[in-house]
Amino acid sequence: MTRRFHESLEGLRQELTAMGGMAERAVELAVRAYAERDQSLCRQVFAGEVEINSTERRLDELVLDLLAMQQPMAVDLRLILAVSKCIADLERVGDQAVNIAECVEQLLTLPEFEAPVDLPAMAVLARTMLRRALNAFVNADDAEAQAVLLLDDQLDAINDHAYGAVADTIARNPSFTRNLLNALIIARNLERIGDHATNIAEDVIFWVRGADVRHHALSDQ
Amino acid sequence: MTRRFHESLEGLRQELTAMGGMAERAVELAVRAYAERDQSLCRQVFAGEVEINSTERRLDELVLDLLAMQQPMAVDLRLILAVSKCIADLERVGDQAVNIAECVEQLLTLPEFEAPVDLPAMAVLARTMLRRALNAFVNADDAEAQAVLLLDDQLDAINDHAYGAVADTIARNPSFTRNLLNALIIARNLERIGDHATNIAEDVIFWVRGADVRHHALSDQ
Repeated sequence: MTRRFHESLEGLRQELTAMGGMAERAVELAVRAYAERDQSLCRQVFAGEVEINSTERRLDELVLDLLAMQQPMAVDLRLILAVSKCIADLERVGDQAVNIAECVEQLLTLPEFEAPVDLPAMAVLARTMLRRALNAFVNADDAEAQAVLLLDDQLDAINDHAYGAVADTIARNPSFTRNLLNALIIARNLERIGDHATNIAEDVIFWVRGADVRHHALSDQ
Repeated sequence: MTRRFHESLEGLRQELTAMGGMAERAVELAVRAYAERDQSLCRQVFAGEVEINSTERRLDELVLDLLAMQQPMAVDLRLILAVSKCIADLERVGDQAVNIAECVEQLLTLPEFEAPVDLPAMAVLARTMLRRALNAFVNADDAEAQAVLLLDDQLDAINDHAYGAVADTIARNPSFTRNLLNALIIARNLERIGDHATNIAEDVIFWVRGADVRHHALSDQ
């Protein structure tokens, strides 16, 4: 493999880490907007998405450049494909943050009502998953990637609990239905962000082990 | 480009079309399970997901084989990357169908209540989008891909309307909150399936035009 190839690959990894930071920050801002009822934070999320989208385009071109170099080895091909999918997942994390910020904007038009969903805890979990999935990528660390899959179960459990808690609270306070539906939708967006982190972790494992252990086949080993 | 390369590419396209058919069928079954309150259809969705997942693994290996052939041309690299992303989107459509079937199973434990959401119409739209996005792929037809983006606006509009209709209905019938939340979650899953079809359509345009027109920049032209 040529030195130029490995330099390009290193550049791509750095850009990917930077894009992961943008995605993580978008999630943080969106959930702070919810907690602090702050529309200016929503606007920061919308502006951040534009940047994430342009980063996606730039990284996709880098991926094509790398593939166009002569005969990358099989393991490098797996890595480049994994990066390509990771870029798409990070872009969609940005979309989910926008969905959350849009829910917050709708909540700001309603009277305040505390929903029985620990969205800040879900956001911390989702951001941790994103960061660890990206670290797993950069360090080619499949054990770290596997840890992300376990965190996803925690996030799913909180989300499942939110559904019942919201249903019960609506039944007692139907006039706050819209507040509660918005909180539930935000919870589902955070759960979806965890799914994207899980996809990234699975792609790391696919690349590092050179074998496909997706679809939670890990637990069978 | 070698004949072997183009034969492999043709094989990949056929497999992709078959996988699209599986994903479309999963959506159809899941929404029929809702409409007919039929748990056996839910089980068909769960079984279908296993098949979709194994198809994803096989197609990912085909993509790697194609990339490993010597020096595919730039336009072919774009196509192969687009196929790789398309495979991931189709797999997630299968996941969404499973989510819907799980909601239906929960609904079967509740008394019947008609939700004010036209889920069958949403399902027809989502399936149409999937089929047309795959056709756009097979025929390298960027106009057809662009039509998919317009259909997504229709699906989003129905979903947005569902939110308000469900909120109002819950406020009047709080004892049916769980039924209505499930219907809303199914609507969001269908909307998400439309997003996957949109992703596929955008990847077709990325490949066919050789330029990145994602993020709805199409409408600016």
